[in-house]
Amino acid sequence: MRYKCVVSYDGTNFHGFQRQKELRTVQLEIEEVLKLILKDIVKIHSAGRTDTGVHSHGQVFHFDTNISMPEKNMKNAINSRLPRDIYVKNVEIVSSDFHSRYSAKGKIYKYTIDLGEYDPLNTKYRYYFEHPLDIEKMIDASSIFIGEHDFRSFTKNHKLRNTVRTIFSIDFKIVDTKIDIYFYGNGFLHNMIRIIVAMLIEIGKGKINKEDLEFILKCEDRAKAPKIAPSNGLCLEKVLY
Amino acid sequence: MRYKCVVSYDGTNFHGFQRQKELRTVQLEIEEVLKLILKDIVKIHSAGRTDTGVHSHGQVFHFDTNISMPEKNMKNAINSRLPRDIYVKNVEIVSSDFHSRYSAKGKIYKYTIDLGEYDPLNTKYRYYFEHPLDIEKMIDASSIFIGEHDFRSFTKNHKLRNTVRTIFSIDFKIVDTKIDIYFYGNGFLHNMIRIIVAMLIEIGKGKINKEDLEFILKCEDRAKAPKIAPSNGLCLEKVLY
Repeated sequence: MRYKCVVSYDGTNFHGFQRQKELRTVQLEIEEVLKLILKDIVKIHSAGRTDTGVHSHGQVFHFDTNISMPEKNMKNAINSRLPRDIYVKNVEIVSSDFHSRYSAKGKIYKYTIDLGEYDPLNTKYRYYFEHPLDIEKMIDASSIFIGEHDFRSFTKNHKLRNTVRTIFSIDFKIVDTKIDIYFYGNGFLHNMIRIIVAMLIEIGKGKINKEDLEFILKCEDRAKAPKIAPSNGLCLEKVLY
Repeated sequence: MRYKCVVSYDGTNFHGFQRQKELRTVQLEIEEVLKLILKDIVKIHSAGRTDTGVHSHGQVFHFDTNISMPEKNMKNAINSRLPRDIYVKNVEIVSSDFHSRYSAKGKIYKYTIDLGEYDPLNTKYRYYFEHPLDIEKMIDASSIFIGEHDFRSFTKNHKLRNTVRTIFSIDFKIVDTKIDIYFYGNGFLHNMIRIIVAMLIEIGKGKINKEDLEFILKCEDRAKAPKIAPSNGLCLEKVLY
């Protein structure tokens, strides 16, 4: 039987999602819990990695087991054993042709910048940026990323064969000093959103303009986009199937 | 010279505000920073204690020093040395008859309950309550606390001589599943808000009714109100002068 799970986590105290030997990762914590429940070594497959410090409200993973359990019982069994910084929001029994990664049609990430005064009660989930930003210019410039592009300039991983991705939309939601930027695309390269955000901030600061950014995108060279926004502002909101 | 400071902190990793030998408290961290800046041992005086795990967006303290420094410079000097879970929002030079505790005319605390599904990204600042609550009944019952009362039933500290306090208002602000309860009063006893919240939850669950709560208040006996809501839902929002 194949179980599909949607999971939230506070990425602050994890070395990212993916298992890395003995480091504390989300995958390690979940697999340890499943081993207890299913009395067997179970490997989970996620929709994708998230980096150290990145949060999730909608990461998806699946796993296979011979043990049949009602979805609600499985959810409760997992959550009652997970540490408080991970929570499984939904468990669903799916057909064996579902794959959390290969069946995914899109992902929505949110990046949060706060231009207001530093607040220790929000610092884990927002990038506090002390200087003024021209948001209108950032919104205007973000349009150059919409559509299918080779995002080689915007990834840490140069060895990838295919760096072409499609961004369906980039939406800014502004409440007081808080700016939530929603990125909806068919997939994102390693560090891609954090590099895009950092370069949009360069636009907002007036350091570069929209034409510079278009040129950087066309260059397909990471050296042209050397900045990266901090991981704590980023959250995987949803995986779409 | 007397400096008045307004300070925010995430109470999660502190043993409360007040200094307790070598335990990590907010007061200890601030006094260590002032010792570095002012090259002298400085004692700070707060508007009141907050318990382990309780947060602040508006705690106030003052201290005296012979060193004269513009308010903005003092603020920056302190913040640049404080750990990331404390932040001084405002520094003001005040006259020597100002006292953060004795000059205070009122305080506003916020207690946050969330009736929605557990979210690891909000758990530090909300009390996730899994069962349904009759909010209308809680709002109605909260009115019995308004005005001047002897709150002996609602404090941990039985040895206090004066347990009479005045609550000016209790306001519920509800957004989706989140309930913020604002308590505005001339002062609050040790654990008073957390005990009141716990008893209002008993009302919301239907375990007791408004008349029971009035009786408990009149009894002036803590044994009649044996519950207490968790500290992480509580935040000191403002001290009024």
